[in-house]
Amino acid sequence: MTDTSRELGVGQVGYAFMGAAHSQAWRTAPSFFPLPLTPRLRALCGRDVGAAQAVADRFGWESVESDWRALIARDDIDLVDICTPGNTHAEIAVAALRAGKHVLCEKPLANTVEEAELMADAAAEAATQGVYAMVGFTYRRTPALSFARRLVADGRLGTIRHVRAQYLQDWLTDPDVPLSWRLDKSLAGSGALGDIGAHVVDAAQYVTGSAITSVSGVLRTFVDSRPVAGDHSTLGGSGSADAERGPVTVDDAAAFTASFANGALGVFEATRFATGRKNAMRLEISGSDGALAFDFEEMNLLQVYDATEPAETAGFRRIVVTEPTHPYTGAWWPPGHGLGYEHGFTHQVVDLVDAIAAGEQPRPSFADGLSVQRVLAAVETSAEDDSRRHTVP
Amino acid sequence: MTDTSRELGVGQVGYAFMGAAHSQAWRTAPSFFPLPLTPRLRALCGRDVGAAQAVADRFGWESVESDWRALIARDDIDLVDICTPGNTHAEIAVAALRAGKHVLCEKPLANTVEEAELMADAAAEAATQGVYAMVGFTYRRTPALSFARRLVADGRLGTIRHVRAQYLQDWLTDPDVPLSWRLDKSLAGSGALGDIGAHVVDAAQYVTGSAITSVSGVLRTFVDSRPVAGDHSTLGGSGSADAERGPVTVDDAAAFTASFANGALGVFEATRFATGRKNAMRLEISGSDGALAFDFEEMNLLQVYDATEPAETAGFRRIVVTEPTHPYTGAWWPPGHGLGYEHGFTHQVVDLVDAIAAGEQPRPSFADGLSVQRVLAAVETSAEDDSRRHTVP
Amino acid sequence: MTDTSRELGVGQVGYAFMGAAHSQAWRTAPSFFPLPLTPRLRALCGRDVGAAQAVADRFGWESVESDWRALIARDDIDLVDICTPGNTHAEIAVAALRAGKHVLCEKPLANTVEEAELMADAAAEAATQGVYAMVGFTYRRTPALSFARRLVADGRLGTIRHVRAQYLQDWLTDPDVPLSWRLDKSLAGSGALGDIGAHVVDAAQYVTGSAITSVSGVLRTFVDSRPVAGDHSTLGGSGSADAERGPVTVDDAAAFTASFANGALGVFEATRFATGRKNAMRLEISGSDGALAFDFEEMNLLQVYDATEPAETAGFRRIVVTEPTHPYTGAWWPPGHGLGYEHGFTHQVVDLVDAIAAGEQPRPSFADGLSVQRVLAAVETSAEDDSRRHTVP
Amino acid sequence: MTDTSRELGVGQVGYAFMGAAHSQAWRTAPSFFPLPLTPRLRALCGRDVGAAQAVADRFGWESVESDWRALIARDDIDLVDICTPGNTHAEIAVAALRAGKHVLCEKPLANTVEEAELMADAAAEAATQGVYAMVGFTYRRTPALSFARRLVADGRLGTIRHVRAQYLQDWLTDPDVPLSWRLDKSLAGSGALGDIGAHVVDAAQYVTGSAITSVSGVLRTFVDSRPVAGDHSTLGGSGSADAERGPVTVDDAAAFTASFANGALGVFEATRFATGRKNAMRLEISGSDGALAFDFEEMNLLQVYDATEPAETAGFRRIVVTEPTHPYTGAWWPPGHGLGYEHGFTHQVVDLVDAIAAGEQPRPSFADGLSVQRVLAAVETSAEDDSRRHTVP
Repeated sequence: MTDTSRELGVGQVGYAFMGAAHSQAWRTAPSFFPLPLTPRLRALCGRDVGAAQAVADRFGWESVESDWRALIARDDIDLVDICTPGNTHAEIAVAALRAGKHVLCEKPLANTVEEAELMADAAAEAATQGVYAMVGFTYRRTPALSFARRLVADGRLGTIRHVRAQYLQDWLTDPDVPLSWRLDKSLAGSGALGDIGAHVVDAAQYVTGSAITSVSGVLRTFVDSRPVAGDHSTLGGSGSADAERGPVTVDDAAAFTASFANGALGVFEATRFATGRKNAMRLEISGSDGALAFDFEEMNLLQVYDATEPAETAGFRRIVVTEPTHPYTGAWWPPGHGLGYEHGFTHQVVDLVDAIAAGEQPRPSFADGLSVQRVLAAVETSAEDDSRRHTVP
Repeated sequence: MTDTSRELGVGQVGYAFMGAAHSQAWRTAPSFFPLPLTPRLRALCGRDVGAAQAVADRFGWESVESDWRALIARDDIDLVDICTPGNTHAEIAVAALRAGKHVLCEKPLANTVEEAELMADAAAEAATQGVYAMVGFTYRRTPALSFARRLVADGRLGTIRHVRAQYLQDWLTDPDVPLSWRLDKSLAGSGALGDIGAHVVDAAQYVTGSAITSVSGVLRTFVDSRPVAGDHSTLGGSGSADAERGPVTVDDAAAFTASFANGALGVFEATRFATGRKNAMRLEISGSDGALAFDFEEMNLLQVYDATEPAETAGFRRIVVTEPTHPYTGAWWPPGHGLGYEHGFTHQVVDLVDAIAAGEQPRPSFADGLSVQRVLAAVETSAEDDSRRHTVP
Repeated sequence: MTDTSRELGVGQVGYAFMGAAHSQAWRTAPSFFPLPLTPRLRALCGRDVGAAQAVADRFGWESVESDWRALIARDDIDLVDICTPGNTHAEIAVAALRAGKHVLCEKPLANTVEEAELMADAAAEAATQGVYAMVGFTYRRTPALSFARRLVADGRLGTIRHVRAQYLQDWLTDPDVPLSWRLDKSLAGSGALGDIGAHVVDAAQYVTGSAITSVSGVLRTFVDSRPVAGDHSTLGGSGSADAERGPVTVDDAAAFTASFANGALGVFEATRFATGRKNAMRLEISGSDGALAFDFEEMNLLQVYDATEPAETAGFRRIVVTEPTHPYTGAWWPPGHGLGYEHGFTHQVVDLVDAIAAGEQPRPSFADGLSVQRVLAAVETSAEDDSRRHTVP
Repeated sequence: MTDTSRELGVGQVGYAFMGAAHSQAWRTAPSFFPLPLTPRLRALCGRDVGAAQAVADRFGWESVESDWRALIARDDIDLVDICTPGNTHAEIAVAALRAGKHVLCEKPLANTVEEAELMADAAAEAATQGVYAMVGFTYRRTPALSFARRLVADGRLGTIRHVRAQYLQDWLTDPDVPLSWRLDKSLAGSGALGDIGAHVVDAAQYVTGSAITSVSGVLRTFVDSRPVAGDHSTLGGSGSADAERGPVTVDDAAAFTASFANGALGVFEATRFATGRKNAMRLEISGSDGALAFDFEEMNLLQVYDATEPAETAGFRRIVVTEPTHPYTGAWWPPGHGLGYEHGFTHQVVDLVDAIAAGEQPRPSFADGLSVQRVLAAVETSAEDDSRRHTVP
């Protein structure tokens, strides 16, 4: 049961795909987890007040704001949750932190390294005052990946040799899928690289506990113009081949090799053209004593190989990550009763609220987000430089 | 957005495992689906008022009752949701229906066919007054199984020849798992047969659209006494081998062959001793034109085989059941962003509220629940009669 | 390298599907395994001498016979390998054994229990003279299943609770597949039950090391007449819907529950109507300490669960059964370089020749084959008796 | 049945792992496939005559030679099959071709591009005289991959966007696995890159029908010294940590991105350190109209996705590639009765003999082998040049 004597006033900016996921998480977290602070859904902020109000009604937000500056100015808001496109993150986050509000910011942290650095600096400054910032790499909170990190940290894999990471989607395979903000560099910063590549970069660094130190990359845009209008959905939609077309200004796919600080060799691929793969966020890590493999399309499973077993009984174990001792899962259902995509957002709220209450820096911090940003930037630089290996600063 | 001008007052009896799942569903349904009536979480009822209050606080129930009769008597309650063990279902459900309350009753409908018949009669009577009853076979609302039914109904499988259904759990494998109400015939009615066998019987009849007409079965109790006390959890727990032991009065496992009205041959197995299987509720259906296979441990997937394809390109298709046109999934996340166990409960609320608002009988009705009960009873009768084939009345 | 000073003269009766598999095995075994006796392919016997000669040329048989009696009479034949339909097994095998020839007989041992008893008696008699008989349940020699038996025998699964066995094929799904000897009771004895059900009965008894003691079964013939002529292949073929049709006199599918001597509960299904399943010979065994699962469609893999692991790292291990210490595989290729269907026949030859040279009874013996036959007969009896449970004698 | 009036005298150089695979293939091919020329296993050549004689006895080679030059000089040899380490390929192959012998040469074609060019020139010259050369990329002859090529060639995948190829083994994970010729650059040319990377490069070019035009790569040696002596096996073995150690002079792992002539983006990885992966030769190809995925650890399966299906029934089809109309499989067993690793070698013999008899260039030709060699060389050059993208000549 939550302690109602201490509350955390939440204001959320943005109400679309990510906004719904965050709203559901804020409301659900205290129902299943004992939280030291009870989130209060104070205000939902969106430029289209009517649309925002509708979402607010659906999820129980107490009020609506049309201007994020007004939201930040409110005394009853302790935390600002930023669910807008990447080009707006820096301004809102820095303002909120300077106003003494905790911040949860969707990934990628920003569209440029420069903005990300500003944000990380602001976060470091705020932290000295007990005001904390976190970036929303929710895949970390998938129980299987959180458990994977624990196994690596416990040394179960020994020395890490290989990281193979893929994030495969296929919603752009049809050349007539219409343009959206995700295909506009000025709003999204980059394409597959920043949108989904960012997730596997973070997941790889998180699970291995080791940073990427250099990369050699390539970007590819397979379809360089698309219908300007159409029946657009969050990911995908359908347009007409006859319609007016506008330019795609981001990458459709990115691939890169990477060196990790621990000596491991990484191979990364992020694409929206992997026909038939809907959300295959995959990670396989090979170490001297074991290995693990994960695919988000089967998110409740983790494959783990123990190389210290005799060869004749060794094999990848299909672990159903729903046991009471697995991360997060004890709060939910009995073994075998799996979780879904949005549970990662609930776990994110839990970890964030716990850290704030404890006066500790939540992870992934803005510094963690900046490190991802630097990897992505190095990939872009390498891609523009004939794939030459570039060091990640 | 929900229409707040029309509300549906909900009172729920029971607050444990199933109670939490139902509570979350009542609250979540209107956030993701446009409902014609807005559920109001009026009262949660439990004999332990303190425990009930804690759950009520967590999920936003407006009040708590200690006596289900008082709950039924309240004017602000339009629907009674029964989440208690099976031995209490009949009394509560019949009383609620007679008081003009809609009823949602957890499965199995009752512990005996006689009780189930009383309930079905009461439901039929109430329906003439526009008061409806539904039984909670939530697995029907797993998108993959709902989609499976559509494929069969559309004739995609042709003539159905085979149904192979399994519900495999392993939480009793350890002989020192302590006793609980689920192992007490007076409370639970039966063991694996009624608890999980009921699910696959309903799912098989639902997906095929055909009734089981005869069965030949066997029951088995592998461990006939267990520690009376121990660290008991919803499914499983740990006890001491030295502890005082009491009798297990239900089956640990059930298996039966079945004939369907459509001529298909069914093979069913339900067990709590399938070591390593956590919640493997599986269904495979073979028809003259195709086949499908499902396993709840990978609940977002459906395997479908199209026998009208040329042999060289035919194969079971691994369909990720998260497309906008799949049942229920369009209301949630983009393709590939899977759902979890509790989403079935949300979908159950959606279908129930839609039916009530439309003045239509929701399914599965109590008559559907009774038909499952009769199958289970026939299995028990057959098991006591040397597995001789018995007709399902 | 084989010892060429000691040879084993082999005569084989039958040259179709099974005949080719056996021929390849006799020739291949000494190339990969050190055999104490070198098989010499002395004679291939078939009523159609021209066809037999063609097969003999392909596999290097030194001569051809048209009459199995002549084959048995030859002094240079030490072993008779019987690859003909089941109705001929008893006569040939008994005659061969009485003539002092070792016998390898394809499964099922015979079409009736009576014949099987005669054969087992003859084999027991011959064994006293150092003349041995073996029945060809080659699936035992799949490395994964042989390894499975070792795991069970070593106690890795603890007390066995469940056996779930399926043999799923789909070559009769099309009602216009033409008749063949496999659909004629007078030649084949039974249908799916004896042809493929026999395999899973043997495999289940072999892997568990425990005998089936009672059964309750049902048989089903879904398509009771088929084209008399057509383009017939080993399994399947295509006929015309307009063609003259003759009766199918065997079962298309069989299902039964079984009790094992060790207390385990078995569920068996054998069918030629499992749409989309080509040769899914599956076995899953659940014990108090572990479990294993096998599917011949992925014959180089064995799934093994160790219940003594902590729950959070326990999971079915996908063991690639190609390590040097796995049964048979050390003689072939490096790890991960899998074997195919016919390797089981080669391993069968190896085990048979080893046993003969050592003067030991090879397994499965005719007594083992008889025990399978008795299970099948009990299933048929039960099926004709309203599925009542019948004891296996 | 084979035509015994025309024979093809075969002489094979080398008798170890590859030698056994080739021997079995030469003997088996005419038993299952109608060949226009009947191979005669004339002579097996090895410097250790005793060892060669033992292998010759096992597989039926008629004689043994200790010097490949003597083999080439024999009139009864029409074809020389080269199964020795890569450093010897060029000399033997060129000599054999100039002597008018057809040549089958194991992959990689040679250890250097220069040697490979000499070989390709010699092969082109010989082809004008009806003398043909083929390089042994046997994975092409896996039915699933051959079928994959047909699907791509038939346009079933549309425009190819992505190739993701992996060859994952783990036999070097243990740092005490002893040195062998495969770890010696002077003998093997390169490590994982040339040994297994070569296979996926060839397979990718073969299945897509498109050449790799540029690469950006990285090589890694994780363990740079190993025991000089130990219990060495074909792949792997065990040594002592205390033993004298010598240098590993080849790569343990290679990774590279690639551009294809058809515009596709390739991501390749080859490693002997992929813990738990025994022989995971994997290929996934994404096109505008479909996709396919293959893993040699399940070599009888091909996953195929048809993007022209409605989204709700689209999914990767698990095709069991054993149908009569699939490549090669009709000659073997009924559907579902899978093949193993060595069958690819048999198919290689079939295709080679067919081409020779038809007077057509067999594929993969030495020119094809050279193209693979050039890709590998470009990867090495790139790896030494900070992973900068290099054009494949």
